[in-house]
Amino acid sequence: MFEEGDGSMRSLLGGKGSNLCEMTNLGLPVPNGFIVTTEACTAYNAGGKVLAQEVKDQVAQCMANLEKETGKKFGDEKNPLLMSVRSGARASMPGMMDTVLNLGLNDKATEALAKLTNNPRFAYDSYRRFIMMFADVVMGVSKHKFETAMGEYKAKKGVADDLDLDADDLKKICDIFKDVYKKNHNSDFPASAMEQLYASITSVFESWDNPRAFVYRRMHDIPYEWGTAVNVQMMVFGNMGDDSGSGVAFSRDPATGEDRLYAEFLVNAQGEDVVAGVRTPQPFGELKNSKTMPGIYDEFVGIAKKLERHYQDMQDMEMTVEKGKLYILQTRNGKRTAPAALKIAIDMVKEGLITRREALMKVDPKQLDQLLHPNFDTAALKAGKEIGKGLAASPGAAAGRVYFSAEDAVEASERGEPVILVRMETSPEDIEGMNVSQGILTVRGGMTSHAAVVARGMGVCCISGCEEIKLNNANKSFELAGNTIKEGDFISLDGTAGTIYLGEIKTVAPEMSGDFAEFMSWADCVRTMGVRANADSPHDAKVALEFGAEGIGLTRTEHMFFEADRIPKMRMMIMSDTEAERRAALDELLPLQRKDFVGIYEVMGERPVTIRLLDPPLHEFMPHEDKDYEHLAKLMGKTVAQLKAIAVSLHELNPMMGHRGCRLAVSYPEIAEMQTRAIIEAAIEVKKSKGFEIVPEIMIPLIGDEKELQFVKDICVTTADKIIEASGVKIKYMVGTMIEIPRACLIADKIAAEAEFFSFGTNDLTQMTYGLSRDDAGRILADYTERNIYEGDPTARLDQTGVGMLMKMAVAGGRKARPGIKLGICGEHGGEPSSVMFCHEIGLDYVSCSPFRLPIARLAAAQAAMDQKKED
Amino acid sequence: MFEEGDGSMRSLLGGKGSNLCEMTNLGLPVPNGFIVTTEACTAYNAGGKVLAQEVKDQVAQCMANLEKETGKKFGDEKNPLLMSVRSGARASMPGMMDTVLNLGLNDKATEALAKLTNNPRFAYDSYRRFIMMFADVVMGVSKHKFETAMGEYKAKKGVADDLDLDADDLKKICDIFKDVYKKNHNSDFPASAMEQLYASITSVFESWDNPRAFVYRRMHDIPYEWGTAVNVQMMVFGNMGDDSGSGVAFSRDPATGEDRLYAEFLVNAQGEDVVAGVRTPQPFGELKNSKTMPGIYDEFVGIAKKLERHYQDMQDMEMTVEKGKLYILQTRNGKRTAPAALKIAIDMVKEGLITRREALMKVDPKQLDQLLHPNFDTAALKAGKEIGKGLAASPGAAAGRVYFSAEDAVEASERGEPVILVRMETSPEDIEGMNVSQGILTVRGGMTSHAAVVARGMGVCCISGCEEIKLNNANKSFELAGNTIKEGDFISLDGTAGTIYLGEIKTVAPEMSGDFAEFMSWADCVRTMGVRANADSPHDAKVALEFGAEGIGLTRTEHMFFEADRIPKMRMMIMSDTEAERRAALDELLPLQRKDFVGIYEVMGERPVTIRLLDPPLHEFMPHEDKDYEHLAKLMGKTVAQLKAIAVSLHELNPMMGHRGCRLAVSYPEIAEMQTRAIIEAAIEVKKSKGFEIVPEIMIPLIGDEKELQFVKDICVTTADKIIEASGVKIKYMVGTMIEIPRACLIADKIAAEAEFFSFGTNDLTQMTYGLSRDDAGRILADYTERNIYEGDPTARLDQTGVGMLMKMAVAGGRKARPGIKLGICGEHGGEPSSVMFCHEIGLDYVSCSPFRLPIARLAAAQAAMDQKKED
Repeated sequence: MFEEGDGSMRSLLGGKGSNLCEMTNLGLPVPNGFIVTTEACTAYNAGGKVLAQEVKDQVAQCMANLEKETGKKFGDEKNPLLMSVRSGARASMPGMMDTVLNLGLNDKATEALAKLTNNPRFAYDSYRRFIMMFADVVMGVSKHKFETAMGEYKAKKGVADDLDLDADDLKKICDIFKDVYKKNHNSDFPASAMEQLYASITSVFESWDNPRAFVYRRMHDIPYEWGTAVNVQMMVFGNMGDDSGSGVAFSRDPATGEDRLYAEFLVNAQGEDVVAGVRTPQPFGELKNSKTMPGIYDEFVGIAKKLERHYQDMQDMEMTVEKGKLYILQTRNGKRTAPAALKIAIDMVKEGLITRREALMKVDPKQLDQLLHPNFDTAALKAGKEIGKGLAASPGAAAGRVYFSAEDAVEASERGEPVILVRMETSPEDIEGMNVSQGILTVRGGMTSHAAVVARGMGVCCISGCEEIKLNNANKSFELAGNTIKEGDFISLDGTAGTIYLGEIKTVAPEMSGDFAEFMSWADCVRTMGVRANADSPHDAKVALEFGAEGIGLTRTEHMFFEADRIPKMRMMIMSDTEAERRAALDELLPLQRKDFVGIYEVMGERPVTIRLLDPPLHEFMPHEDKDYEHLAKLMGKTVAQLKAIAVSLHELNPMMGHRGCRLAVSYPEIAEMQTRAIIEAAIEVKKSKGFEIVPEIMIPLIGDEKELQFVKDICVTTADKIIEASGVKIKYMVGTMIEIPRACLIADKIAAEAEFFSFGTNDLTQMTYGLSRDDAGRILADYTERNIYEGDPTARLDQTGVGMLMKMAVAGGRKARPGIKLGICGEHGGEPSSVMFCHEIGLDYVSCSPFRLPIARLAAAQAAMDQKKED
Repeated sequence: MFEEGDGSMRSLLGGKGSNLCEMTNLGLPVPNGFIVTTEACTAYNAGGKVLAQEVKDQVAQCMANLEKETGKKFGDEKNPLLMSVRSGARASMPGMMDTVLNLGLNDKATEALAKLTNNPRFAYDSYRRFIMMFADVVMGVSKHKFETAMGEYKAKKGVADDLDLDADDLKKICDIFKDVYKKNHNSDFPASAMEQLYASITSVFESWDNPRAFVYRRMHDIPYEWGTAVNVQMMVFGNMGDDSGSGVAFSRDPATGEDRLYAEFLVNAQGEDVVAGVRTPQPFGELKNSKTMPGIYDEFVGIAKKLERHYQDMQDMEMTVEKGKLYILQTRNGKRTAPAALKIAIDMVKEGLITRREALMKVDPKQLDQLLHPNFDTAALKAGKEIGKGLAASPGAAAGRVYFSAEDAVEASERGEPVILVRMETSPEDIEGMNVSQGILTVRGGMTSHAAVVARGMGVCCISGCEEIKLNNANKSFELAGNTIKEGDFISLDGTAGTIYLGEIKTVAPEMSGDFAEFMSWADCVRTMGVRANADSPHDAKVALEFGAEGIGLTRTEHMFFEADRIPKMRMMIMSDTEAERRAALDELLPLQRKDFVGIYEVMGERPVTIRLLDPPLHEFMPHEDKDYEHLAKLMGKTVAQLKAIAVSLHELNPMMGHRGCRLAVSYPEIAEMQTRAIIEAAIEVKKSKGFEIVPEIMIPLIGDEKELQFVKDICVTTADKIIEASGVKIKYMVGTMIEIPRACLIADKIAAEAEFFSFGTNDLTQMTYGLSRDDAGRILADYTERNIYEGDPTARLDQTGVGMLMKMAVAGGRKARPGIKLGICGEHGGEPSSVMFCHEIGLDYVSCSPFRLPIARLAAAQAAMDQKKED
């Protein structure tokens, strides 16, 4: 019974149920009832999907208590007790689960209800609603069949509005409905109230397994294991006449966050009518001067404020007025847009309702993305035609004309066109094209594919892994859901949801208010973990600082080599036959690379900067076009055939596990030498010119063995020390490693003996731990989520069980061998809230992510710090 | 001092040193001396390569003891004590380390030696040898310079033989040598005996770091950390006249194992002369009736037998006779060929010298390979021209004509030609070509590349990863070390050593004697771990039984699909657009697959058979040639363009981490369904026809998550149970999984809740744990071994540190969740001795490997069982 529970019992009673208990205890007018717990749901799902006798017995006992309390009897022919059954999971899942109202009605009980209320119309209206709802929700007989039957009846009678049907009509409709039921279910509509109740409870449990629920849980990271509770509550009726009605209300505006009651009300209607939008509700404010329901407005406003104060959050409430008496059926923390979330949190602090720390817990870090990227204009979106779904790889909304190559994209952009780049998958060669695009759409690849990672880094909207697309590069077109989209056609992408729309949908730029900066500054005060950004250029570094970076956790030196003026030099280096040739090409790259580092150091000042040595397999830099080969052949004095032979020899079957990372430095020490030289010489230069004490952090990627690290570290240290000594300028530097190979985690103690810092590369670590290539994961992940094997995408959300175990081992091993070792993460997970919290838990010193994800990381880190404090 | 040590102190004193101690204690005539321990070497290498003062002090103390014992003095002008310095590692490393003789000589000491021995020729001969050896070995002044100078002297004098030089000549040569030394080393030849000694000891330690030593250690899996000891021993002189001499001897024939003394002797020579082959030695038997050295023959024969009995093994000994007195300078267990190893072990058991268990420890499991594969004819090999090296991927020797495609290979084979198939890398399509080849040579790929794995399974010689080859498929030729080899040209491969020879070298077939079977039966009695074979067909299964398999640990069902009559059906299945199409194609594959299983069950009887569900990425089955596409298009009623589009859509960037293994069953449950059906129906059929109780073990590959396993297991169990019930025949079966994804090891407890057995797939597990693709590893491993980063190839020899740690976690997790879980290994490591021993240590129930490696596995398992017993 509600008075026995309270708000702290959320995981057992579900959100709705625990709030009902809480409200009952606050003395609010809540119809009494009881809750079948989430444990019963879990037992139901585990135990062959049968409702246990024990649960049935307890339900019967509760019903007996209610009968005693009310003097009514469930299913009675004289004074029937009517009940509602609603799902209520631990986390709110609006629209996902099913509801049945008016349980306990049968022919005789309806007749009794008509007499008791002296309102036969109401009684039969309730009965016909119940038959339809029970049939639809519990027994799987489509609602549509009943609506059709009712429509036919109305047509025959020549009326349009339900309100024009009288009691007799409704009684007849009840009979018709029972026939529809029998015809479609091959059995009579159950007259037994307890049978109705058990079937409804079972149905709620079953609805935990329905596809909509799966989708919602996946989107909101709710574990299947939680299960749902079932709220069984006495009915109150908003459809008993003009002195009755139902409404829903938010205690503040959920779109803007403004502090005003945001409510809608329907006279003479049940709550479902408001939610379903069958009739258009009136603004709640009109009740202020209502004669049929005097005082209700003021009473509800008082309750809304009381609930808001009690829960210290904006409330989403359901009310029913039965014959002039107000009941509160539900309250929960209201869903809100990101701007509203921010405004409400800040306003409540100003109002003295909550502390700054509490305010930080009220905003979902993931929502901040909405504040940082363009979104579709809400009105324009309604007219949009959805044609497909992919992975929500990089947030924001974009509309543009479709182009199929980086070159075409660049040209179109130069003509001033908005561009959507569509590719099978992207490669580093596409960077310039990606950079000029409003949005990127790829057929293959997961959440950490090249396209996804780069797009997030650029803050460009991206949808990856849309395997439904049939791409025809030759014709410059693609097919999706029966539509053929040609070069130059408009499409629109919602990178936050992964949805693709036909045509051009207007977007609106994000508004970042002063509130945002203030809120983030609170987060910075609270968090204990550092935040850095992944940034590959002085420009990236500037953006990173604007978004609050305290340093750079990852500079990918290879990204610098893809620029048009550099890639020929890079290619000459790769295509060299001898070390001497390679050194000559490297000598040309040195000043360019040094200049990049000087630029980054100048922006970052004395903040830490971690620079990773060359990482990708060399063949990523290979020319794709014949003309590039010809150009290169001329430059190098070789034949195209010779160059192509080299390209073939560099081809790998599984490049992700091939000749890359530190393995390149082992084979070609001169590359690591040149890069170290650039890193150190740039630091000396900036120290001389600006007086900054730069302490570069040289990061060696893909280490799996301590001897491998020794070998490459030796190259770096020997080179660096020689330059420093020759320069006469004192420069400190650190040498550390990425932890991204499972073996590195297993032997972290040995690696830490050589490494001054660890930075977890969880993109690769996840790939190797799962044996799952991020570039090929799209199709696989789609099948796995569809079949409920993976609940989350491990490339997007850190797998704390497996990958996390390796990380814990690495943290322990690293700290054991080198107690002061600096530990960070620079994989994409560094900007994902649950992963950031995990990093805090296992004691990392900082997270590093793309600049546009920094606010998320900062808030998540703050929340993690508060969570931990609570636990301490 | 030698009398203080004994044979048990091998790791501290080195092999040679501990044997010297042991022989001293046996009362054999061993010149006294002392040993600088391996610990001093390790300290030297770790401590900046400086000989510690403590070590110097102890050396001086030992020298003082020796001086006291002999009454001689080191470096003395009157009665000089002369010493030798020899390396002596824990494991024998013949020819790898350096030796210096006659330490303590300088101008005055030589003069004294001449007087004392009344043999100035001997004294100056010793002196000039010492100068040259010390200069060469310790100071890096090439021996060649001295030999040239001596040659010039002899030419001037007009003599050819060293023996024609008299004492005066040799004295002059000593002066010339000192000049050569001074000229090349910019300092005088050191007269101080202690200085000579310290420098020599240092030099031995340094020689641990020389490239030859690295190569030898790599070949023989000797850890760098062991270090070498230094034996400092009093000189005895074989070059004091005709009553002196030196010899080497084996107590049995090291080539055949025959029980006869196998010895050579040089009169009036030091031991180095015998080893270096400067003069041709005489058979030792000629000493039987020697007048200058009476009794020496019999004395030595007695000592040889005594040593053999003492060490219970065939001995490799060095002796010196000084003025008619016999000294034993060294003894060690002799190296021998595989047939000799077997014969000696068996003979010694027959002689009652050792037990069967001891005999098992005398044969190196790796050597058994020699007994199972053809080898080059020794004489023919000497004439062979080596042109390159690759990885020793599959043992044996082969000569044949070169072909560049599987088709050409098959055609040539049908013409009766011996074939060597040369490919960039092989793919499953090449299977038929590989099967008809005598040898396989690939440019790319490591020890577990497709070519290597398949060749070992077939028992065909293979060299992989020869990256030096420039392959020109268009011209049907390749270049290697300046040679152009065209289609049809002969080459020869030594797959045991990885060496490639020009032209045709005769091979000899292995002789497997009855001894072999007897010896293996002893191993089977001793081992506690089971042995199974990887076998994909009834034929493989028969071979497996011949080699002693107790079951099949891995049947790769996909190999069955590559046969010419099946691959079109497989392709139809893959190219299907709908489930219905796919099921139709699977229906055609079902009877073929069932027939394979029936055949395997019939061969294996009631022995366990583990069958793995389809594993490789589907695109491996794709056609490569246009004509195959056309054929398929006709069969399927589709266009070639449609089929090619499907092939493109199946392409993956990293197929090893892509859509394969259980992921196929998740996407296409109907494949797992068909395979389960074939497995179970075949078991029922064989039970009916033969009465065998078949208990198939269905193995699900590539599991990384327990829900994934649940999903696929459900398909298997549902399908199997339905068939069994319908058949009315009772059949038991098991469902288990490969453990080959790192994550599976980390969550093994959860996986074991579903899996009835684990089989470690260490090929993939090693790939993922290292992030190193076996197909792309060739070049990387070559660079890594060259730079001494990896001492062993982790794809060939299980990485016990990293991969092994994951395996231990999986064993612990598996046993925790399911105490009786069956644990095995079916990766290639299952046939590698050190890996087999590791599997025994961590408690696996069985190892499974290719049939040709079974004898190795059986012996290694026996040795592991005895090792453990010793430790217990």
